[in-house]
Formats: sequence, structure tokens, C-alpha cells
Amino acid sequence: MSLWYAQDYLDHYQMSLEVKESLFMGKSEFQEIMVIETYLYGKALLLDGIVQTTEKDEFMYHEMLVHPAMVTCLSPSKVLIVGGGDGGASREVLKHPVDKVVLVDIDQQVIEICQKFFPQLGKWDDSRLEVIIGDAATFLTTTQDTFDVIIMDSTDPLPAHVAEPLFTQDFFDLAYERLTPGGVLVSQMEPPFFQPERIAELWKRLKNFPLVHLYWGLVPTYPGGVWNYVVASKKNDPTLPRKKLPFTTRYYSDSIHRAAFVLPPFLQVLVEKANR
Amino acid sequence: MSLWYAQDYLDHYQMSLEVKESLFMGKSEFQEIMVIETYLYGKALLLDGIVQTTEKDEFMYHEMLVHPAMVTCLSPSKVLIVGGGDGGASREVLKHPVDKVVLVDIDQQVIEICQKFFPQLGKWDDSRLEVIIGDAATFLTTTQDTFDVIIMDSTDPLPAHVAEPLFTQDFFDLAYERLTPGGVLVSQMEPPFFQPERIAELWKRLKNFPLVHLYWGLVPTYPGGVWNYVVASKKNDPTLPRKKLPFTTRYYSDSIHRAAFVLPPFLQVLVEKANR
Repeated sequence: MSLWYAQDYLDHYQMSLEVKESLFMGKSEFQEIMVIETYLYGKALLLDGIVQTTEKDEFMYHEMLVHPAMVTCLSPSKVLIVGGGDGGASREVLKHPVDKVVLVDIDQQVIEICQKFFPQLGKWDDSRLEVIIGDAATFLTTTQDTFDVIIMDSTDPLPAHVAEPLFTQDFFDLAYERLTPGGVLVSQMEPPFFQPERIAELWKRLKNFPLVHLYWGLVPTYPGGVWNYVVASKKNDPTLPRKKLPFTTRYYSDSIHRAAFVLPPFLQVLVEKANR
Repeated sequence: MSLWYAQDYLDHYQMSLEVKESLFMGKSEFQEIMVIETYLYGKALLLDGIVQTTEKDEFMYHEMLVHPAMVTCLSPSKVLIVGGGDGGASREVLKHPVDKVVLVDIDQQVIEICQKFFPQLGKWDDSRLEVIIGDAATFLTTTQDTFDVIIMDSTDPLPAHVAEPLFTQDFFDLAYERLTPGGVLVSQMEPPFFQPERIAELWKRLKNFPLVHLYWGLVPTYPGGVWNYVVASKKNDPTLPRKKLPFTTRYYSDSIHRAAFVLPPFLQVLVEKANR
């Protein structure tokens, strides 16, 4: 007998992983949650049927989501994570000498499931971390806090899915307002070669930021094998690392930082089109 | 009804593409040959069930296979392509002002099928191109020619598959001898994170070359979404582009050349281990 997980992310394309064991299947108020043990990537968390994170390659995603923005904003003190219920992004942020990290995730059950099945992923007992269960847009409307870095580690903005309201003009305007003058926002986004019109949309909504750049990194379990990130900065150029990290990383390095912003000409054209 | 091509390249992993139409299925003396029309990537050539090239992403692979080696060897005049029966590698080489390109492929039927179904892929009518049907190892033993660049564009060296004898110590020793003093050899190879022991093996066999480097590029239809290349140089450092290309490319650029050699620390460790 063999058990396979098949991911339908793109039309006409499927990535499948053989499953050793199905560890959890359930449905929260917001989404379907699954944890499977795969042969190739160890344990994997799926939300609404899409791989979010796996034990073997989560470091690639989380390091590349977090560190470029953190070193762009030279000495960030307060960081907001939108989503990030698996704990990986906050773990990476907490390696920096920050004062406070606020993690706002809408789905408490995701956090509980991850604490149970992926205990090494988060650093939940760090006293600098505050976890708020709720809608990040509502949080941004009501908070008086400002942040040096906002990290969007949500699911994809698919129509009628839980993260859709996080990628609206209103949300990005709110985020811009809650960022300090040298603040930086970063979000994961799907690779632009599948649906280039989606990046054009996102770019428009970030028009308040003087510096918006796309960069990329490897994540073998994501569709197409690489993932893209958008970083929007109020002041500092995010393409150049301003300092070396004082800790060890497995994917990120200052040379990788620089290289990640180098796009092949065919992607550069898509980005420039989106920029107009 | 829906028709799917499922690729079993790695154990426990499958990449599947929905097929619009199956255009050719046959078996040559050496391998199974298939041409399918996919929704996502256009026409695709499969050898022994593995995607070799597709209309939509072949430029990424062929540009990254060819141009880094060509610009490392400042003014290459004679180039040998081992395999490359789809014509894409020779098309890229012929964009350079070379005097002669010898393409040695063992399987005439692959060339004929590609000329029929992928007419835009090759530049078969260029008078500088000589096509030899035969075994490249035998060719290297008998030829009196020397080459400035040798490009290995074969299938993967899977056990009992047609390309296995091309990745032996004997073959690389022969290739080294037939290269001019500033000569460069480049080969495609699978990404090292799946089977790192394979790169260690390959490295050992390239020990004659003073400069051996790994680099990478995007190829969405290959397993894991990125592909790796090994370049071995007798004299010039291949990590630094020595000139700008006098023609337009869609994936390669001199900045991409530099960035492609920047490896994340976890890969760098694997490569350094292999180097010992």
C-alpha cells in the first residue's frame, strides 16, 4: 500500500509526496489543518491542502523571509508577524537582539497543532514574544504600537481563503502607518512566472513605499521549487545587506542576500512592468 | 477526461503535468522517447520518462548550461557538445562567434524527433555545426581535435541508462586531455540536496581540473525546480564573468552569472565536503 499527498496549487500541475503516516486531520473555524509525515521532507503542515512548512526545508523559507528585512532595518526593536502560526518566523526574529515580537495569527488551532507536532519550529517560551489570536487588520487598526519590521507570513491570498483580506490596499496602508520612519515590510508571495498579473496588483498596493523589491530563494516543497518575497522599505535599500548576522544560518548569508535580488532578465521584465 | 504525465525521478516524490495531447511515443535503440503537449509548459520531450526539455522553460536550462563556460573561456573557437540532441545547447553556443561546434549524440532518433516537433529549438542549418551520431567516449578516444569548451548535455547518469558511461573517471580524463590549455568543461547535474553523495563522486572524477565549481539556476519542470551545473576549468576562474554577451538572453546575464555561484551555507558545506 502506498499513501500519497497530492497538491493542486496550480492548474495542470501537481506535486505529490509519499506519506509515511497521517498524523492529524481536522478543521478549525478558518481552514482545514493536516499534519503528515512524508518520506522526503519529514513532517509537513498543510493548510487547506497546501504545504506550509516541512521539517526539512522550513529553514530555507523562514530564514529568507525574516533576515533580509531585519538587516535592512539596521537595529529593529519591535517586530510584528502577521500569521506565522507555525512559529518558524518568530524563532528567526528572536535570534536578533529585538525588544518585542508581536505575532498575530487568526487561528489558535494552527498554533496548538504546531506546538504539538513541530515543537522545534517555534520558540514559544521567549518572554519577548507576545501572541495575539485575532485578525491582523483589526489589530493594526486598534494598536497604538509602531513597528520597525512587519513580516507577513500568511497563507496565500487565494479568493475566499483566510488570508485574502491581508493583501488589500487598506491593509498595506495600515501597515505603512504602523511602521517607524525606517520601517520595512516583507511578505512571501508566489513566484511571478506563474501568474505575473498578481505581482502587478501587489506592487500597486505598496505604492506608498519608496523602495519595493522582489527577491527569491529555494523552497523545494513549494510549487516550482523556488519562492518569492517582496520587501518594501521606507528608507534603506533592502537589496544590500548592512551587517553580518551575529549567529549561524543554513540558507541566509550576506552573499545570498545580495544574490537573491538578482533576477534573470525575463523576471526583471515582469517586475518592471508591474512597477509602472 | 484528463490525461496526466507523472514523473518518478526521486523516490517518494512525483511531479505531474496535465497533458493536452500525446504527440509521439516510441523507443529507439537506446531509450524511450515521448513528446507531449502540456498545458503549463507547451511541448515537452521525455527520455525514459524524464522531462528533458519543454518549450516554455528550455531557455533557462540551455542559457545557464552554455554561457557561463563560454565566457570563462574568453574567446572559444571550437566547442564539443556531448548529447544535446534536442539542439538547444548548440543553438546557444552558435550565438557566440565560434568557428566550429561538434555535437556528438548517440541517438539519431532523438535528433530527428526534435527537428520535427521542436523546430525552433535547434539551429541545425548553421554551417559551423557538425553532428556526429555515436558514443562520445569513443569519439574522444579517436579524434585528433582539441576543444576550448566541452558541454555535457546528456541525460542523467542513472544506473543502466544511456548516459552512465559519460560520467566515469575515464571519460573525464579523456575530456581533460582533449581540452585546450585554457579549456572549460561544464555538465548539468542534479541538485545536490537530494543525493549529496553523487556530487562527491563527480568531484573526485574532476580532480585533474584546478578549478571546479557548482552553480545553479531555475528550471521549473525539473524535480525540485532548480538545477545544478558543475564547471571545471583549466585556467580561468569560472565564477566571474569576463565579458558581457553581445546578444540578448532571457535568463543569463552577467549579474546572474555571479549570483548563480553563490550557494547557501547548507549547500556550501556539501560542496566543501565533496571537495575534500
